[in-house]
Amino acid sequence: MSADDQQERLKIEGWILGFVDGEGCFSISIYRNGTTRNSWQIFHEFVVTQGEKSIESLEILRNFFKCGNIYVNRRYDNHKENLYRYCVRSLKDLQQKIIPFFEQNRLKTSKSEDFEKFVSVIRMIANKSHCSDEGLQNIAKIIQTMNRKVPSKFLASSETIRQELNTTKI
Amino acid sequence: MSADDQQERLKIEGWILGFVDGEGCFSISIYRNGTTRNSWQIFHEFVVTQGEKSIESLEILRNFFKCGNIYVNRRYDNHKENLYRYCVRSLKDLQQKIIPFFEQNRLKTSKSEDFEKFVSVIRMIANKSHCSDEGLQNIAKIIQTMNRKVPSKFLASSETIRQELNTTKI
Repeated sequence: MSADDQQERLKIEGWILGFVDGEGCFSISIYRNGTTRNSWQIFHEFVVTQGEKSIESLEILRNFFKCGNIYVNRRYDNHKENLYRYCVRSLKDLQQKIIPFFEQNRLKTSKSEDFEKFVSVIRMIANKSHCSDEGLQNIAKIIQTMNRKVPSKFLASSETIRQELNTTKI
Repeated sequence: MSADDQQERLKIEGWILGFVDGEGCFSISIYRNGTTRNSWQIFHEFVVTQGEKSIESLEILRNFFKCGNIYVNRRYDNHKENLYRYCVRSLKDLQQKIIPFFEQNRLKTSKSEDFEKFVSVIRMIANKSHCSDEGLQNIAKIIQTMNRKVPSKFLASSETIRQELNTTKI
C-alpha cells in the first residue's frame, strides 16, 4: 500500500468511526417465533440510516466493510425523501467484520456502551447461550439496558413483537 | 510530528468529518434587531449537539478546532439527560478554522450542500453584502434552501424571530 493509500485508509477509518458515532445503531431485539426451539428469536443488527440524498455515504460503509445490504424504507407520508438503511445482520459478518473494526477503533460517544453490550450478546449467541431459558433471560436483561428496541416490560411479558419495518433491499 | 502522531491526526480528522456528517449543522438565520443599520441581523453558527453522556465527543471538537464553546440546553421535561451544543459563532473562527477544515476534508453526505451555501453566506457577510437590502435579500434566498432555521414565509414576512435557546455556556 502506498503512503497516499495508507493516509486515505486512515482517514476513511476515522470517518466511519465518526459517522457511526453520530448515526449508527447496534441493535438487539427479541421476538416471538414459533419455529425456534424455545419460541423466541433474537434479532441482531448493525444499522446506519440516512435520507435518500445521502445514500452514497451508506455505499461507502458497504464497500468498506464488504458485507451488509442497503434497504429502502419507502415513505408515503409528507416527508420529502425515502429513508435508506445500511444493515449488517449476519452473525458471521458481525463477528468477523463489524465487531473487530469497532474493537480496534473505539467509539468516542456513549454509543460505545451499547457496542460493548451488543458484543456481549453476540458472543452469548455464538456460544448458544440463548438456547436455554436462563441464557435468554440473561440476554434480555442486557438488551433492556441498551437502546429502545425492547420495551421494559419484556421480562414480565410473554410476548414481544419486533417492530416490522417496511423495507425493500436495493 | 512522529509517524504515530501523524496517523493519529489523520484518524481524528476523519472522525471529525464523519461525526459532523452525522451530527453537525451549518446554520444561518435572520432575526429582527432594531440596533442594526437595516433592523435585521444574521446569525451564523456551526453546531454539533449531543446528550450529556457524550459530552466528551464535543470536547474533542473544541480541542481540535481550538475555538467555539459548549453550551448546555437544560431539559426540565421527562427527557433523561440535558443536551449539549458545541457552537462556533465567531465570523473570524468560522472563516479561519471551521471553513478551511471542511474545504480540505469534504463531507460525504448531503450536508456538503448546506456547507457550500453556508460558505457563500459567510463570504457575503465578510464582504458586507448584508448591509444593503439587495444583499440581505440574496442571503435570505440562499438560507431558504438550507436547513429549517428560516421559515419559507421569510421573504414575504416583515419579521422573523430567531428561536430563543435556553442555553448556558459551560
